[in-house]
Amino acid sequence: MNAQDGYANFEVGYDIPAKPGMDAADIQTPCLILDLDALERNVKKMGDYAKAHGMRHRSHGKMHKSVDVQKLQESLGGAVGVCCQKVSEAEVFVRGGIKDVLVSNQVRDPAKIDRLARLPKLGSRIIVCVDDVENVAELSAAAEKHGTTLEVLVEIDCGAGRCGVTTSQDVVAIARAVEAAPGLKFTGIQAYQGAMQHLDKYEDRKAKLDAAIAMVKDAVQALKANGLEPELVSGGGTGSYYFESNSGVYNELQCGSYAFMDADYGRILDKDGKRIDRGEWENAFFILTSVMSHAKRDKAIVDAGLKAQSVDSGLPVVFGRDDVTYVKCSDEHGVVDDPKGVLKVGDKLRLVPGHCDPTANVHDWYVGVRGGKVETVWPVSARGKAY
Amino acid sequence: MNAQDGYANFEVGYDIPAKPGMDAADIQTPCLILDLDALERNVKKMGDYAKAHGMRHRSHGKMHKSVDVQKLQESLGGAVGVCCQKVSEAEVFVRGGIKDVLVSNQVRDPAKIDRLARLPKLGSRIIVCVDDVENVAELSAAAEKHGTTLEVLVEIDCGAGRCGVTTSQDVVAIARAVEAAPGLKFTGIQAYQGAMQHLDKYEDRKAKLDAAIAMVKDAVQALKANGLEPELVSGGGTGSYYFESNSGVYNELQCGSYAFMDADYGRILDKDGKRIDRGEWENAFFILTSVMSHAKRDKAIVDAGLKAQSVDSGLPVVFGRDDVTYVKCSDEHGVVDDPKGVLKVGDKLRLVPGHCDPTANVHDWYVGVRGGKVETVWPVSARGKAY
Repeated sequence: MNAQDGYANFEVGYDIPAKPGMDAADIQTPCLILDLDALERNVKKMGDYAKAHGMRHRSHGKMHKSVDVQKLQESLGGAVGVCCQKVSEAEVFVRGGIKDVLVSNQVRDPAKIDRLARLPKLGSRIIVCVDDVENVAELSAAAEKHGTTLEVLVEIDCGAGRCGVTTSQDVVAIARAVEAAPGLKFTGIQAYQGAMQHLDKYEDRKAKLDAAIAMVKDAVQALKANGLEPELVSGGGTGSYYFESNSGVYNELQCGSYAFMDADYGRILDKDGKRIDRGEWENAFFILTSVMSHAKRDKAIVDAGLKAQSVDSGLPVVFGRDDVTYVKCSDEHGVVDDPKGVLKVGDKLRLVPGHCDPTANVHDWYVGVRGGKVETVWPVSARGKAY
Repeated sequence: MNAQDGYANFEVGYDIPAKPGMDAADIQTPCLILDLDALERNVKKMGDYAKAHGMRHRSHGKMHKSVDVQKLQESLGGAVGVCCQKVSEAEVFVRGGIKDVLVSNQVRDPAKIDRLARLPKLGSRIIVCVDDVENVAELSAAAEKHGTTLEVLVEIDCGAGRCGVTTSQDVVAIARAVEAAPGLKFTGIQAYQGAMQHLDKYEDRKAKLDAAIAMVKDAVQALKANGLEPELVSGGGTGSYYFESNSGVYNELQCGSYAFMDADYGRILDKDGKRIDRGEWENAFFILTSVMSHAKRDKAIVDAGLKAQSVDSGLPVVFGRDDVTYVKCSDEHGVVDDPKGVLKVGDKLRLVPGHCDPTANVHDWYVGVRGGKVETVWPVSARGKAY
């Protein structure tokens, strides 16, 4: 069911920034808007790429946190399921009807393990990552208690420097423990190189991925030598998916940001030295903001500040304009340099945020726009689901 | 009514990180916790200060976005009402029973002006800021339409460089227009110097506030010369309230962060050169996080990343420990340097976030803790209310 059907009694402003059918000019700001045409083109393009390269694409739901966006990625982009980072996100996607859910992260808290082990009862395949042999027994006990099966990917730290083991010996040891544990199934390898995705130069990214692929190949060889065939070898993001797709060892991608784009990702360069937001992907995701004060001639104050975005990867960029620049951000205000005084109170700007994932996470709604009209309003279904 | 009463059917984990009565050790992380003893001491201390100095204290709800925290500030700290930055926040506070609400910001969108003008019907006093004479007619028309009265503070930019006029002539012109406009009442001056609050040195803050006070005195004199007596002269934050209180011209404070404290505010120095989080105020507000992976000996990975906080003012500080340091942050992970390997999976840490306001805004709940038990769970009532 499309979420828009349920909003008849929501009050624009208090509960929700827009309603389907409204003119886009009447949207209450600040809020997130999705250019539905651009979003659909991005989703279709990645789906076509994965299909042409014989890859499964498990779209990353940690980016959009939206059951509706995920369903679009499955129906239009052929995505095989979702990945996410938190048990609470997995709960939202499973309850929203997503049938194949990977928690691409460690789950160690006993209460969370119990919640995770209950999820397969709702009819979805549940996969989780492990980087510590002690976790195997914890997951197994919970799956046995609930009479479910949890599938397990052994996580390799192939350069991100966070979770994950670093030797093929450890990979094999954990995989063996999983295979021997009741209620668990060894399904493969998680190997996402997160640290290289934002390196500007294609060659620098390739060098990091070459090293990651070498680690993964070594691990797969060691697993096979021990009679452990991985069904899934999963990883790859918006800055690397072509490397994994041509690696001969990965068979599943986990791209997220390609669907929305953001300013920080947009700056990285493809193999021809062209920014990836100038051809490879389109900006489909914006913060819509309004000018609310122009008491100084060369500065416009807009209504999107720190509570409408995350600035961890830099300030937002004003989309489609080079005459004005967003230069400063406080809790509820942005300062926009307007040297020629072209803006006036009430003018609306589309901002491309520095980082899409944590920006989506501060909003309740995506306002889907097409042809100057609000076509749909989707909840950010897993917003705030951090635990 | 205390919010905890309604949570019987909420499921810990999926909906909510904790329930009243739980052991604090069982709280699901990451989440916000409030040390209720420390919070109450901070609230009482600011209330006592304001009373002793003959100042009204209008606590800033943009910081906590919580009807429950606001009610504590009114009942225990003698706060006279709330200020907030958005119409949607004002709607939450009014519907939550707060009787005196200042939107310390400009409201220019026609739909938002209409929403604001409806609010006095719910029984609360509504005050709003103006920095542009054109806004006066817009507000007046909406108030007349709804048969309500909106009170107006003329906003002076006394150094923050955002909204606000910069000459006493402009202050008088707007105040006169307000007095002449049906449905509006001229109530006084808004003059918050936001840009100086985080300067480390007391003397540097004093120099900025001296300049602000001079502007405000000039404006008040000009208003009086024109027969316009301001009832309220409002401003002052956690880094400056003693200057406004001793200015002889301000009569209302707008402090927010004092109640919770954060790492960035905590670093500023009082007049004796002592950090303000080492005596003046206590840390009452924390992100509770758990170690979820320790696959590398000297690095613990914790479960609070960019989606559990805002890092605009720097990384969080691990509370009460100098043996471990939070050094890196990605969407769902924090990297904690643990050179001696003292942490283990499952250990919980209290993080003091860099900036409390936008950190509160990414969470749904405050878990109030006292004596090792969860005493209450309060919703972040106006979280996400940006429009």
